[in-house]
Amino acid sequence: MTAPSRTGALLDTVRERTPLVHCVTNLVATTFSANALLALGASPAMVEDPEEAAELAAVAGALVVNTGTMSRARAEGMHAAARAAHDAGTPWLLDPVAVGALSLRTHVAGELLAHGPTVVRGNASEILALAGEVGGGRGVDATATVDDAADAADELARRHGTVVAVSGVVDRLTDGRTVHHVGGGHPLMGRVTAMGCALGALTAAFLAAARTTDSAREWDPLTAAVAAHAAVGVCGAAAGRTAGGPGSFVPAWLDALAALDGADDAGGADALVDPA
Amino acid sequence: MTAPSRTGALLDTVRERTPLVHCVTNLVATTFSANALLALGASPAMVEDPEEAAELAAVAGALVVNTGTMSRARAEGMHAAARAAHDAGTPWLLDPVAVGALSLRTHVAGELLAHGPTVVRGNASEILALAGEVGGGRGVDATATVDDAADAADELARRHGTVVAVSGVVDRLTDGRTVHHVGGGHPLMGRVTAMGCALGALTAAFLAAARTTDSAREWDPLTAAVAAHAAVGVCGAAAGRTAGGPGSFVPAWLDALAALDGADDAGGADALVDPA
Amino acid sequence: MTAPSRTGALLDTVRERTPLVHCVTNLVATTFSANALLALGASPAMVEDPEEAAELAAVAGALVVNTGTMSRARAEGMHAAARAAHDAGTPWLLDPVAVGALSLRTHVAGELLAHGPTVVRGNASEILALAGEVGGGRGVDATATVDDAADAADELARRHGTVVAVSGVVDRLTDGRTVHHVGGGHPLMGRVTAMGCALGALTAAFLAAARTTDSAREWDPLTAAVAAHAAVGVCGAAAGRTAGGPGSFVPAWLDALAALDGADDAGGADALVDPA
Repeated sequence: MTAPSRTGALLDTVRERTPLVHCVTNLVATTFSANALLALGASPAMVEDPEEAAELAAVAGALVVNTGTMSRARAEGMHAAARAAHDAGTPWLLDPVAVGALSLRTHVAGELLAHGPTVVRGNASEILALAGEVGGGRGVDATATVDDAADAADELARRHGTVVAVSGVVDRLTDGRTVHHVGGGHPLMGRVTAMGCALGALTAAFLAAARTTDSAREWDPLTAAVAAHAAVGVCGAAAGRTAGGPGSFVPAWLDALAALDGADDAGGADALVDPA
Repeated sequence: MTAPSRTGALLDTVRERTPLVHCVTNLVATTFSANALLALGASPAMVEDPEEAAELAAVAGALVVNTGTMSRARAEGMHAAARAAHDAGTPWLLDPVAVGALSLRTHVAGELLAHGPTVVRGNASEILALAGEVGGGRGVDATATVDDAADAADELARRHGTVVAVSGVVDRLTDGRTVHHVGGGHPLMGRVTAMGCALGALTAAFLAAARTTDSAREWDPLTAAVAAHAAVGVCGAAAGRTAGGPGSFVPAWLDALAALDGADDAGGADALVDPA
Repeated sequence: MTAPSRTGALLDTVRERTPLVHCVTNLVATTFSANALLALGASPAMVEDPEEAAELAAVAGALVVNTGTMSRARAEGMHAAARAAHDAGTPWLLDPVAVGALSLRTHVAGELLAHGPTVVRGNASEILALAGEVGGGRGVDATATVDDAADAADELARRHGTVVAVSGVVDRLTDGRTVHHVGGGHPLMGRVTAMGCALGALTAAFLAAARTTDSAREWDPLTAAVAAHAAVGVCGAAAGRTAGGPGSFVPAWLDALAALDGADDAGGADALVDPA
């Protein structure tokens, strides 16, 4: 299995290259995503004006488009950024927050798929809705399980040539052919807002790192996404051991992201991937 | 007195039902309000596009409309959400941040009253301004005292059939007939931004819990609002005992919200209500 | 040298007067800037609607205009606020985030200079771009050094009659005639988002304090800006000594701002200014 062995190497690459991760993200997630990227060692830029978003996505290391706090104005910036990323070959991640539960963002997310996201990351309800199944989501809650969304995720991945990461107690990532599971984390991650959004942003940082080290023809977004999920999982578990609740979990998790290194990864994050 | 005895029961209901609390709130408060709701045990959703806001307010457990960082675009989402909440019978809370000090939000807040808020929560200057008195507010500062606003609060409550909660060193809540006072808290709460906005959001979670347990004809928003203020007050006092300043107060207060339980309430939060 | 001796006095004035600092700032910085101002002892107000921004800037103690997460809508609020501040004699600070790297904000920042900012604060790349040099910035990163921007800063200060503060490992502040350097701080400040934006907001609080204590003809924005940078530097160093990483740095720094007092300043912040 090639995936886990690369977590440490990709992490080191993030620190060496400090890839610029362009986020068009929601109003709740923006500060926390930026701080997560900085803690990891990447360089965040939150830019959503359509003109500026197109400029930045073309030169960024990776792009995140997150559909939370959707508005018609923000949708223009999302389209401009995703189109520019696609045209420039910038890896980009779609985070379809609450798609299926609310109509405008469900429509916009469907359109955004046409720009060819490198990775789609969401909870099971969101992935079911994006794949055209009945979502049953209630806002940002996941009422469906990761298993419920397995077939829809595989189908979505094959139809759009993308990696689909479904977040849950154990995450499931697929490119439509290969499937990996990632454990770890901590229940307090569900008691902190925008934790999934931060996972999406950090995944984009790993995509950027993988893209710069591998040749353009051969780089593997699935491996990079698995590594990101494993890194987040090991930091979540570490923070959960010291936190006194959801409030103190946030600084502890950011500290853990900054303290994580390639050597620790070999014994920690890698062990979370596809455990026997 | 029926109010204090229900704090623990309502808190338990919040944890069991995890009510969806829809917030149309300001840019400063959005992350903190979401984290406060998650820490308490509710489920936040920050949605402000007019189309999506109307969809969500109709099915949410409760709605918060907060006039901070007002804009003409955001005002549309506020009206759509408040109208849908009114039509669907969703309890909703109006938080008139800096009303009286700035013209657009003063105008919008006056219009929002027509949608029949279940609770209005603000500082004394804001309540005076909303009631049509001269506010004298300076931005979000309260220059008037809770006592100064007592008559205006009672009159506002009777005129609009709402509960009015005036925040101060000791909070005063009234439905125009019955008055309760709630103490507790800590001076550091005044050194953290959006603490009042978070109190509004948590009050909405208690409204949602009360609405689901009581019959639609008999539920009592005043009791629920008092319980929310008491819960926040006891957590504020607890966090103040361990915090080293306003920065460490925030995670300590969120941890205290998550640690609060029905049993502790009986001896803590209840004692803050209408002390002799 | 008059600058350092005034840090403590200005800090005491901030606490006594709690100046209202009006911020038209970016979506990432808004909560953190508000909390930094509250921790220091000032009173933040985040208002960006053009009508409300003009009202508030005319009566505020100071104004900050920050070009991060620029949009055409937000640019209107920036112009309205800066114009009103200029007309009313309210001191105001321009923070040209990522100017030079993105086109809309570079255009808007150039226009904003016409409203006569009291202070311009940015990193070297941003100051070079604002002065008309090739910035070479990559989003919010500073690729140029403080020394690289020294001539551009002096020229910008003289041309617009403003103070220019260039942030770096050692900050350099000039009014085009006198130059001061301020050390201190901690490397973790570069791992927390919107730290520069918070420095801008705190500088505005010191401007407001200086403006109220000195006669209108004689007050010295350079001295006030130096004092603010020294206060931030001493708090950064203090927080860095106790923080376990970028996550725990944030509450530690806010606690340090609140704990800072005029007496400590004499031995701490003052020593950071123009060391031999």
